[in-house]
Formats: sequence, structure tokens, C-alpha cells
Amino acid sequence: MPVTNIAKRTYDHNFRLDPIVRSLLDTDFYKLLMLQLIRHLHGDVQATFSVINRSRTVRLAEVIDEAELRAQLDHARTIRFAKKELIWLAGNTFYGKQQMFAPDFINWLSAFRLPEYDLRIVDGQFDLRFEGPWTHTSMWEIPALTIINELRARAAMRDKGELALDILYARAKARLWEKVERLRQLDDLVLSDFGTRRRHGFLWQRWCVEALKEGLGERFIGTSNVLLAMDADLEAIGTNAHELPMVAAALADTDEALLHAPYRVLEEWRAHYNGNLLVALPDAFGTASFLKNAPSWLADWTGFRPDSAPPIEGGEQIIRWWEQHGVDPRTRLLIFSDGMDIDTIEETYRHFHGRVRLSFGWGTNLTNDFRGCDPDGRTGLEPISLVCKVTSANGRPAVKLSDNPEKATGHPDNIERYRRVFGSEGQRRSAVTV
Amino acid sequence: MPVTNIAKRTYDHNFRLDPIVRSLLDTDFYKLLMLQLIRHLHGDVQATFSVINRSRTVRLAEVIDEAELRAQLDHARTIRFAKKELIWLAGNTFYGKQQMFAPDFINWLSAFRLPEYDLRIVDGQFDLRFEGPWTHTSMWEIPALTIINELRARAAMRDKGELALDILYARAKARLWEKVERLRQLDDLVLSDFGTRRRHGFLWQRWCVEALKEGLGERFIGTSNVLLAMDADLEAIGTNAHELPMVAAALADTDEALLHAPYRVLEEWRAHYNGNLLVALPDAFGTASFLKNAPSWLADWTGFRPDSAPPIEGGEQIIRWWEQHGVDPRTRLLIFSDGMDIDTIEETYRHFHGRVRLSFGWGTNLTNDFRGCDPDGRTGLEPISLVCKVTSANGRPAVKLSDNPEKATGHPDNIERYRRVFGSEGQRRSAVTV
Repeated sequence: MPVTNIAKRTYDHNFRLDPIVRSLLDTDFYKLLMLQLIRHLHGDVQATFSVINRSRTVRLAEVIDEAELRAQLDHARTIRFAKKELIWLAGNTFYGKQQMFAPDFINWLSAFRLPEYDLRIVDGQFDLRFEGPWTHTSMWEIPALTIINELRARAAMRDKGELALDILYARAKARLWEKVERLRQLDDLVLSDFGTRRRHGFLWQRWCVEALKEGLGERFIGTSNVLLAMDADLEAIGTNAHELPMVAAALADTDEALLHAPYRVLEEWRAHYNGNLLVALPDAFGTASFLKNAPSWLADWTGFRPDSAPPIEGGEQIIRWWEQHGVDPRTRLLIFSDGMDIDTIEETYRHFHGRVRLSFGWGTNLTNDFRGCDPDGRTGLEPISLVCKVTSANGRPAVKLSDNPEKATGHPDNIERYRRVFGSEGQRRSAVTV
Repeated sequence: MPVTNIAKRTYDHNFRLDPIVRSLLDTDFYKLLMLQLIRHLHGDVQATFSVINRSRTVRLAEVIDEAELRAQLDHARTIRFAKKELIWLAGNTFYGKQQMFAPDFINWLSAFRLPEYDLRIVDGQFDLRFEGPWTHTSMWEIPALTIINELRARAAMRDKGELALDILYARAKARLWEKVERLRQLDDLVLSDFGTRRRHGFLWQRWCVEALKEGLGERFIGTSNVLLAMDADLEAIGTNAHELPMVAAALADTDEALLHAPYRVLEEWRAHYNGNLLVALPDAFGTASFLKNAPSWLADWTGFRPDSAPPIEGGEQIIRWWEQHGVDPRTRLLIFSDGMDIDTIEETYRHFHGRVRLSFGWGTNLTNDFRGCDPDGRTGLEPISLVCKVTSANGRPAVKLSDNPEKATGHPDNIERYRRVFGSEGQRRSAVTV
């Protein structure tokens, strides 16, 4: 006779809110690394972050109930870092280094909470903004994205029966495992989970991470998700992101200062982290321009994370630059993390294997690949291209050019000025699907 | 914080035995229909049933622990029909008919228990026999098979971690659902579950039945498993099996009586069930011989279940026979149930659609298709061809010829005599995989 756990059942049926964010550690590791630097060097900067849905045809405000979104955002604002989380941040070793986070910063985190948000509906989309000190608004990026993505997934699954859900997840699991079996063939693969922001849901990301851990063994080096890294005893992976050069550029007073903003930021980074975490993102305003004007000390850095050029082309460009600077690429690292999936990982691996140290950050196509898994044949679970970007700093507009004009953000006039300063060499338009 | 149900966990960890058979209704419906007739007309016959593993290369006694097998068989012997089960058998309508089971039979069932068994190990195989009154040994067929098949599956999964099992079942579910999506394309499909005896396990069969119920709707007409039929409010499907003609043949004193034994059995059947359940199994001693010597009243029966000839060839043979008897095949039923899978179901459906009433009994490839699903790449979950057949009646050897010599059972000398009496026209050897 089946025995029902009556307490559990009663609790389940009285659910008010099933929180999407349950911990402030449920964010990308680079947010904490950048936050420490921002607080240290730019604690007075005001920065606005905005959620932007690049998949315009998906009218999010017609899919997700505004009240539900507010309830989740409000809930996230009630969360504080737990004591054991701060102890772990203080005591854990990151990239082999102890005390990556200073006691003073840890102490400051203990009072941290997410700041207010501003939510409106404009033309079927959520206009969701976070205004205030950069030290606080920056931390909304990941929770804002995970909340919207998971609410959308929940909406897509709302009418499904138990069997349909069972089949949906069975298919998604079977699909991920097919990918794992292919990845296993790549002997020297180095791969990490970068899928927090676009995940189907927290529990699903956790499953994916467990599957990679078991399926790939040593080839799987960790996750960008700090909470999962703590819980599963994995390395937390990440360094820095576009918001650093974007804010620096926005605050630059002259075109000359603008052109050098990306390098100034990296100097700050190197100094702040005492020569650790030396991975640079070259594409905020175009990789060609970045490399052309880059100071030669950058050739001493560990590597680059090309994030919007086609992987092989972007990698070759950087390898040529290293060679021009007399550096053996085999001693340097390339991290590929832009919309990678099994085919592009295999292709990129085979292309560069042996020529450079390679690492893959696998995001949306790891933690949100439900394409064709819905037994009802609907598409509400297919990933969308949702980002949360800094849009202004101290009231001045922020801009991103990227190597793919489809990924540019900012007002057209400002984009135009940036293109004039940085040039548009090597820009290649290609559809952004994730 | 995850909450552990401590009582459940403690109970799970103290498991002595996870019973494979938990109800005497967990058997095929035809066993109960045959049992009522056997008790009524042949209550004095002694019959021996023997488990035969046609997949000789799988040395079952090296895979399954003998003590575990005995524990499961012993447990099955402790089970009685539950009161609610007997009430359901008495009160339910089967094939539209009330009181299919007489009150006197139901009353007799209330005291029924499985008889003793005789287990030895011979050359790596279990020599498992049931000797005693036909009214009791017959009922071992299904539990003996489900116990051995499920113990083998458990053994194959014993060292697997939680994730490997998760992927295994995810793949099996995804695979079954692909089949369901193909079957949905067949508008007039009529299909039932015949997968009890060779199932991976009871819970998996239940999942498969629920999936067919939800996925195929009206096209799924029921299950041969009486317990699942009761629990899921489905039709119980089945009529009779080879043991009836096999026992009748074994008891025949002359070659003439032997030749007519199969028809005598069907006359008994028709009389006993008052003209209901008129589906005949033509292949016990070869379909060609069966049809050649069949009395013309058999053309008035609802249909046939060809069970060992290739489906299209076997069906055409029967259609020709109907036409020779002036019967329109479109008014008659063919039930295909021999090792069917998605490809042969589609092919057979397309071949006969519109020419005859068609029905499919889907067995092993429904409830035990884990081929290629094991993430460790092992084959211990692939189905084997295990049967439990009547091997003697009142001390006289029983024989089955079938349309496929690979499926013949009995001593070679006796098979020889049967071939002489019934002929071997139309016999076609083909590999038996399930």
C-alpha cells in the first residue's frame, strides 16, 4: 500500500511562493570578484542595470504574470548571505589562492541586500531596471535573469500533466547524456558550467552539474555558480565581465580616455588581485581594435575569453597577436563561452587542440536545452536571449559594441561615437539565439 | 533546507525483501480464463510447467543469486487473492460480459495459493519446475517469469549510481515516447499491453501502461495484466494460450485424437464461455496444418492470434482461409502479439489496414526495451527469451511445434511424432530474440 507523507503533501498544497532565488551565492563567481574591486575602487559610482530581451518576438510580459515576477524579485530582496556562506567565501581557496576575498569585504557582504527595482511593462516586454550604487545594482544581474527565465519555464509547463513533465525531463536528460558521451571522447577537454543566467531552473542546473561531474570526471573543472560550487565541492569559475570596461568607457571624458578605458580597467584588475585571475575579455568594443591598441604587458596574461566572435576566427586572431608579441600560444589560455554547444565545442577543440590551452564555459545549451523535448510540441521552453546589462554610469550612457553588431547595446548615437573611436574592423553580424 | 522523511528512510534501509510479486492478480488475464475452464473440465489433470531459457548464452544462475530467487518464489507462495480483488473479478465486466467468472470459481480462488516449486541449477541455468494439479501449476507461469526477469534486471543495475539509473530510465522513457509518437500516426490502431511476463519490472510496466493510456487514448484498449487493469481502470485483455492444446495433445491416445486435440479444446472453450472470447491460437502445432484440418465452424469465430509465423505471412494465410470459407475478413479479427515492436507494428498495420480487423498485443519491446540505454554500455538489461511451458500432463510429455522450429519445445522423439501427425508445412526458422 502506498504511504502518503501527509505533512509534506499538506505543505506542498499550501505553497504561497516557490522561491527561484534562495541564496545570494546563487550567482556567477565573477560578480563577487568584480564586486570586491568595484567596492574598493569605484564605491561612489552609480550604475543602472537594465534587463534586455533580445528575442523581441517572445513577449515576456504576456507570458509571465507581473505579480509573480514582483513576488520573486521582492523575495530575492529579503535574502542575506548566510553565515556559513560567508565562512566558505572567506575560508575557501579559489584558483589555488587563499583569502581571495578580504575580511573587510566579507564583513561588508554580511549586511548586503539587493537594492530596489523599477518594473514597468512596455510593448509586451518588461522594462526592469536597477538604479543605485554600482556596488549593489551589479548584483541584480544574475538573479534578475534566473527569475525571469525560470518564471517563463514554469509558465510553459503550467498546464502539463505529470506524465508529460516526466517525458519532458526524461528527454532532456537523455539529450544531455548524449552530449556527455560525445564530450568524453575529447581526451584533454577542460569544461565548466557557465549556465546559471539562462538556466531552465535551479534544480535542473544542479542536475546538469551533477551529470557533468559524474560523466566527465577531471574534464569538468567547475561551475560559475558559487552556490553549486560550494554545495558540490567544485571549483568556482570566473573572472570579470563586460560591465568593467563598459562603466570605465562611460566615465571616460575624452575619446582618448575612451580608447584606453578597457586597458585601464585591466590594470586595476591586475593590481587589485595581485597578478591572479589574469584572463581578459577582448570584445567589449571589438576584438580587432582591442588587440591593435593593447599594451604589450597584456601578452603576459594567462589568456583571453573571446565572447562574441565566431570561436575559430576569434581564437586565431588572438593566437596571431600572441605570436606577434613573441609568446608561445601553447603557454596561453583561450576560454570559449559564447553560445557553445556540443558541435561547436567539438569543432573548436579539434581546431585548437595542441596549439593553445583550451577551456570551455558551457552555458545556455547546457542548462536550458529543451528544444524538441516538449511532448506537446510547444516551443515555450526554447531559450531566449535575455541579458542584464549596465546601461548608464553616473548618468552617462553605457555602450557595448561586441564583435557581433547584434549584441551591441546602447543608444545609436553613442554606438556611433564608439564605432568612430574603436573602429568596426572585424565586426560580423550573426543571429543571437542564446 | 531539504527535509528528510526519517521514517521512510529508516524503513528503506531495513528492507529485507522487495517483493516482485505482490498480488495474485499480477498475472495475465488469460491465465484466469483458462484456469476457470481447467478447473471445470480438467480438475484431475496433473501438469508440470518448466521454465526454459531460450537465450542459452545468458547463464542465469550466474547472474541471479539462488537464495534471492528462492526468497521471491517463497514470498509469492504466501500471497492470497485479496477480498477487493475477488470482488472486482466478480463484479467487473470483461469484454462487455458480466459474471465472466462464476461465483463458485471466485469462491475457490479465495483459498488459492501457488503450489510448491522444484529448483535446481543445471549447467549455469535454473531448472525450475512446478509439478502438481494443472489448476495450480498453471498459475506459476507468469510469476515465475516476472520474478526471474526482474531479478536479472536488478542484478544488472546493482552497481549503478543514482545518476546512471536516472539516465537509464530517462533514456528508456524517451525511447518509449518516440514509439508512442509514431503509433499516434496510425489512426485506427488498436493496441494492448501484453508485456507482463518479460517486463523489466512491475513499476516500469505500470509506467509504460500509464504512458500508453495518456499517449494513445482510445487506440490503447487495455492490458493483459489483471492487476494493472483493475488499478488503472482498463480493460483486461486475453483469451487462451498454447497450454490448452498442448495438454489436450499430450493426453490424446491415438494419432487421430492428437490431430483433433486442438479443435476439441476450442469446442470446450466455446461451450464453456457460451460463445464469448472466440479467439483461437492457430500455431501450437503449425498454422498450415491447423487451418487445413480446421472444422468450418471455426470460420464463425471472432478471429485468430497468429503467434509465431512472420506477421504478414501468417495473416495472409488466415485471410485466405477465411475467404475459402466464404467469410469477409473485414468482419474478422487478427491479433498480432509475437515479438512486435514499433517497426513491425507499423508495417503490419499498413499491410492489413482496411482488409481485416486488426489488433496488436505489444509485449517485451514495450515493457523491456532498455537496449542501448545503459550509460555504462553493458547489455545485462537486454531482454532474453524466457518461457514457462507445460512440459508434461499426467506424466505424458507435452510438445509445442509452433510455426518457428526455434520455438518448439518437447523431447526430440515426441517432436518427431507430432511433425509426422501435423506435418511441417509452412515451418520457417527464425531467430527468437524476445
